[in-house]
Amino acid sequence: MGRVTTRRTVIRVRDGALAGSRPDTLVAEEPLEIRLDGRPLAVTMRTPGDDFALAAGFLVSEGVLASPEELAHIVYCGGAGQEGGNTYNVVDVRLAPGVPVPDIALERNVYTTSSCGVCGKASLDAVRTTARWELDADTPRGVAAELLATLPGRLRAAQRVFDRTGGLHAAGLFSPSGELLEVCEDVGRHNAVDKLVGRALRNGALPLRDTLLMVSGRASFELVQKAVMAGIPVLAAVSAPSSLAVDLAEEAGLTLVGFLRGASMNVYAGAHRLDLPTGSG
Amino acid sequence: MGRVTTRRTVIRVRDGALAGSRPDTLVAEEPLEIRLDGRPLAVTMRTPGDDFALAAGFLVSEGVLASPEELAHIVYCGGAGQEGGNTYNVVDVRLAPGVPVPDIALERNVYTTSSCGVCGKASLDAVRTTARWELDADTPRGVAAELLATLPGRLRAAQRVFDRTGGLHAAGLFSPSGELLEVCEDVGRHNAVDKLVGRALRNGALPLRDTLLMVSGRASFELVQKAVMAGIPVLAAVSAPSSLAVDLAEEAGLTLVGFLRGASMNVYAGAHRLDLPTGSG
Repeated sequence: MGRVTTRRTVIRVRDGALAGSRPDTLVAEEPLEIRLDGRPLAVTMRTPGDDFALAAGFLVSEGVLASPEELAHIVYCGGAGQEGGNTYNVVDVRLAPGVPVPDIALERNVYTTSSCGVCGKASLDAVRTTARWELDADTPRGVAAELLATLPGRLRAAQRVFDRTGGLHAAGLFSPSGELLEVCEDVGRHNAVDKLVGRALRNGALPLRDTLLMVSGRASFELVQKAVMAGIPVLAAVSAPSSLAVDLAEEAGLTLVGFLRGASMNVYAGAHRLDLPTGSG
Repeated sequence: MGRVTTRRTVIRVRDGALAGSRPDTLVAEEPLEIRLDGRPLAVTMRTPGDDFALAAGFLVSEGVLASPEELAHIVYCGGAGQEGGNTYNVVDVRLAPGVPVPDIALERNVYTTSSCGVCGKASLDAVRTTARWELDADTPRGVAAELLATLPGRLRAAQRVFDRTGGLHAAGLFSPSGELLEVCEDVGRHNAVDKLVGRALRNGALPLRDTLLMVSGRASFELVQKAVMAGIPVLAAVSAPSSLAVDLAEEAGLTLVGFLRGASMNVYAGAHRLDLPTGSG
């Protein structure tokens, strides 16, 4: 429980020469089963720690939860470990009385909560129909490119485990003036965002209207979905977005920035929230 | 169908100056539903193209398929697109007569084909009990660190789409002498490996006994699982492995190399297959 890293012996080769065998720090990865009112809903491979936030954030992304009042409690279940002990790898999320248990298709995964056919359009529709709020087109405004350029460095500085393992994705929540509000890490980038959103849910901070989300990797459809479902209006990523990520950002009115490296970046959607430099273009 | 990239207009900022608005190439991402004998089994967000190989490789990873004789055929289903046309986002894999339809827990995802409790140990056990073959400890032998050092560059050179989008993971299959045998790309690293393994299945090439697998990202449990299930004895990754990835590599006898960058690398398991330099260590 909460074991974020572990140590293993590794043989190191540096610049073509043997550099010895010695303990190295690895990021921990363990399965987490998320149950909803006792029913198994999903299993994700995650870095232990912040499991309740991960489960809560996952359910925000799925449109099940939007306020702390809808959540009764979260508990670790007896995980049926082979030695009989609790594995702390199964959490059960109990909804408050009166909150409807959603019709999430349990036999599929999160992309198919839509009842429509399987296609990109249906994936977009599913987000629209389950979102509890719309993004405010006027908030924030005037976010400077110079400020965005500082976020990767601030996120990197805030990562507590990355430097030791190199194996963690990070998600950082920032104010429009660049103040770091929250940072979460996980072996899976989607889990890092779920943890961050789940903390906000439990703190009664959803929707995260006036914030920027910075992620360490690429911007997939799934990450844009999670931002939209949490009410986050600006998503910036170090690497490339996918086609469906851009489509969803445009449809939901999200500002999507990719390839944010140094003072260079690509703006894929929602440029109206940004204060971009004038230039040679 | 097969639309690997798409173009969107992007606003570019370079070195703090506006560098214009112009079309940019994005990697395509679309959901793919994989059915087994007509029953929905999983949905993955993937880059269209090579869908039959992806589905076949996914089922190799799950222990359902191990030879082309077990596979009757794969077809695109009517995908129930909202305009009624085929979305080419649903494939149905039909098993050959007599091949048992496995008891894959449909209400969960791929990590829970084990009937045991949810924990890392159970994840390892699940791979052991579903694997169709064991890795041969003596094949290959004497793989030189110098050869491994060349693989990232060869993989990068073989990537057809990466250079245009920056958004694709790659998986490359190499001979022990460094010859590139196959390369697959996808927005999801696990999909890239599934496509590669699926091609091998359909070509009757499983198990891939005398090969090296090079992946562009990190080495998660899931990627080691896929290598083991395909009979691949050596897995090398550009970035970090997780704890459970190393555990599985050790248990299955897989050679696992991480942080393979230039002439530097870390060997996490199975060093006996490698010819490492003598050095200062």
